[in-house]
Amino acid sequence: MTTATQLLQPVELDLEALLSDLRGLIGAGHPILQAAAEHLFSAGGKRLRPGIVLLISRALTPEGELPIKHRKLAQITEMIHTASLVHDDVVDEADTRRGVETVHSRFDPRIAVLAGDFLFAQASWHLANLENLEVVKLLSRVIMDLAEGEIKQGLNRFDPKQSFASYLDKSYCKTASLIANSSKAIGVLSDVDEEHLNSLYLFGRQLGLAFQVVDDILDFTGSDQQLGKPAASDLGSGYLTAPVLYALDENPFLSELIERNFSEKEDLLKALAIVRESNAIEKSRELAERFSSESKDAICWLPDSSAKNALLDLPEFVLSRLY
Amino acid sequence: MTTATQLLQPVELDLEALLSDLRGLIGAGHPILQAAAEHLFSAGGKRLRPGIVLLISRALTPEGELPIKHRKLAQITEMIHTASLVHDDVVDEADTRRGVETVHSRFDPRIAVLAGDFLFAQASWHLANLENLEVVKLLSRVIMDLAEGEIKQGLNRFDPKQSFASYLDKSYCKTASLIANSSKAIGVLSDVDEEHLNSLYLFGRQLGLAFQVVDDILDFTGSDQQLGKPAASDLGSGYLTAPVLYALDENPFLSELIERNFSEKEDLLKALAIVRESNAIEKSRELAERFSSESKDAICWLPDSSAKNALLDLPEFVLSRLY
Repeated sequence: MTTATQLLQPVELDLEALLSDLRGLIGAGHPILQAAAEHLFSAGGKRLRPGIVLLISRALTPEGELPIKHRKLAQITEMIHTASLVHDDVVDEADTRRGVETVHSRFDPRIAVLAGDFLFAQASWHLANLENLEVVKLLSRVIMDLAEGEIKQGLNRFDPKQSFASYLDKSYCKTASLIANSSKAIGVLSDVDEEHLNSLYLFGRQLGLAFQVVDDILDFTGSDQQLGKPAASDLGSGYLTAPVLYALDENPFLSELIERNFSEKEDLLKALAIVRESNAIEKSRELAERFSSESKDAICWLPDSSAKNALLDLPEFVLSRLY
Repeated sequence: MTTATQLLQPVELDLEALLSDLRGLIGAGHPILQAAAEHLFSAGGKRLRPGIVLLISRALTPEGELPIKHRKLAQITEMIHTASLVHDDVVDEADTRRGVETVHSRFDPRIAVLAGDFLFAQASWHLANLENLEVVKLLSRVIMDLAEGEIKQGLNRFDPKQSFASYLDKSYCKTASLIANSSKAIGVLSDVDEEHLNSLYLFGRQLGLAFQVVDDILDFTGSDQQLGKPAASDLGSGYLTAPVLYALDENPFLSELIERNFSEKEDLLKALAIVRESNAIEKSRELAERFSSESKDAICWLPDSSAKNALLDLPEFVLSRLY
C-alpha cells in the first residue's frame, strides 16, 4: 500500500523547507510560542494540504524551481489549516488529535488562542503580500468557511433531522474548502484559464469531501489505536456524519437514541451496532468512491509528470485508509 | 466637558446603521453567537474606532452619501477591534472590561474563541471584497500587529529592564496600528495623494499612542469605579507602562518590587505609592500631550467641515479623560 510519504515524494524537499520556514516563523523571538511551534510543525505530520498545493505547482511548472509565490501559498495553506485545528480543539475541548496531545491540553488554552491568532494573522499578512486580489479572495473565503463550518457543526449536534445536504455543506466548509480554493489559487498564480481553474477547484473539493467521508467511516470501523481516539467518538459527541444519516433512513430507533443524547446506559453501543449492521457503511463507502473518482477525473488535462501521477494517486490513497 | 457622543455627532446615524449591520451579521442564523453579538454590539459603547473612520470619510467626502466601501471599512475596523478584544480577554483571563462582563466570563471561553474567529474571518472576507490590494495590506498588517502586540505584552511582563521603546512598540501594535492604518486606508479609498496618506496615518498613530498613554496613566490615578476595574490592576499583572517606566528611572527600589512579582505583603501598594509620588505621572501626561498635539497637527490640511472639527477635537478629548 502506498504511504503518504511515497505519494508526496515529488515535493519531499519542498515540504521539508516549508516546515522549517514555518517553525522559524512562529518561533522567532517568541519563547512562549516556540514550544507550540515545535509541537505543531514537528516532523511526522502528513502535511497533505501543502503537499497537494506543491504537487499542483510542480505539475503546472514542469521545469526549474517553483516560483516563490507558489511556495508561499503552500505555507499559507498549512498556516490556516493549523490555526483552525488549534482553535477547533479549544472549542471542541479535544485533548488529543490523531493520538497527539493538543496545544491547549499540553500547554494552556490561552497559548492555543494566541498561537492560532498568530498563525491566522501571519497567514493573512503573507496572503496580502502575494499581491493578487483573486488569491486573497479565495483564501479569505476559506477562513470564513472554516469559522462557519465550526459553528454549523455545533448547531447540528444531536439533531437527527438534519439533512444530508447540511452534512455535506459542513464537510465542505471544514475540510474541502481549503483544498479546493488553494488548488484553484495555485492555478490563478500560474495564469491557468477559467475552465481549468474550475477543474482544479473541483479536484480539491471532491478530494476534500472524499477525505471527510472516509474519516467519518473510520469513526465506526477503525480501532481506537488506528484512530488515535476512541471509536464512535464523533457519534458520542453528537456529530452526525454520513454513516449515521444513512442508518437513520433504515432504522428510526436510532433517532430516539440520538434525541435523548445517548443518555441511557448502552445507548451509544446500541447506536454503534445499528450503524454497523445497516447498509450505511457500504453506502458511505460508495459516496467516498464517487467523490474520489470525480476528483481524479477533474485533473486528467494536466501535462504528464511525476507530480501529476502523484495527484492522480491521491484520491485512491484517501480511499485506501478504509482497507 | 465634551462627551464622545457629542464628538461623534456628525456621524451618529452612520454609526447606528453600522452597529445594527454588525449585530445582524454575526447573529444571523447562529443562535449560539446571537447573545454574544448582542453583548458585543449593544448600544452604549463609544465606538471611537469606526467613529474616527467615518469622520475621516465625511471630511474627505464633504457632500452627499458616504461611499459603501467607506462604510464597509468602518465596519471591518470595528470587527477587527472587537475580535481582538474578545480573544485578548481569554488570553488575559479578564473577567470584566470597562465594568462589563467579558464574553468568555459571561458565556464560555469556547464561545469567545468562536466569536472572535468568526469576526476575524468576516473581517478578512469583507476586506478582500473591497477590491483594493493596498487596503487589504494595511488592514492585514493591523491583524498581525494585534497578535504580535499581545505576545510582546506577555513577554515583557514583570521585566523592569524593558526599554521605553519596547513599551511604545507594544502600544503601537495593540492600540495605534488599527487607528493609524484604517485612517490611511480611508485615504486610499478616497484617492488621497501619498503625502496626505502619510499624514492620515500619523494622525491615527499619534492619537492611538495618546489614547494608550492616557489609559496607562488612569490605571494609577483613576478610581476603581471610573476604570471599571481595580486601580493599578495593569501593574499588578506585571504590565509595565509609561508611568512605571518613568518612575523606575527615579527609584531603583521599584525594580526590586517588580522583579519579585510583588510577592511580599504590600509590595503592590508600595509600588503604587512610588509611582504616584514620583514625577512619572506628570512626565506621562506630557508625553500624551505631545502625541495628542502631533495628531492634531497632522490633519490641518483637511477641508473645513463639522467632521474635520470633530477630528481636531478628538486628541483633546482623549486628554480630557485625565481631568
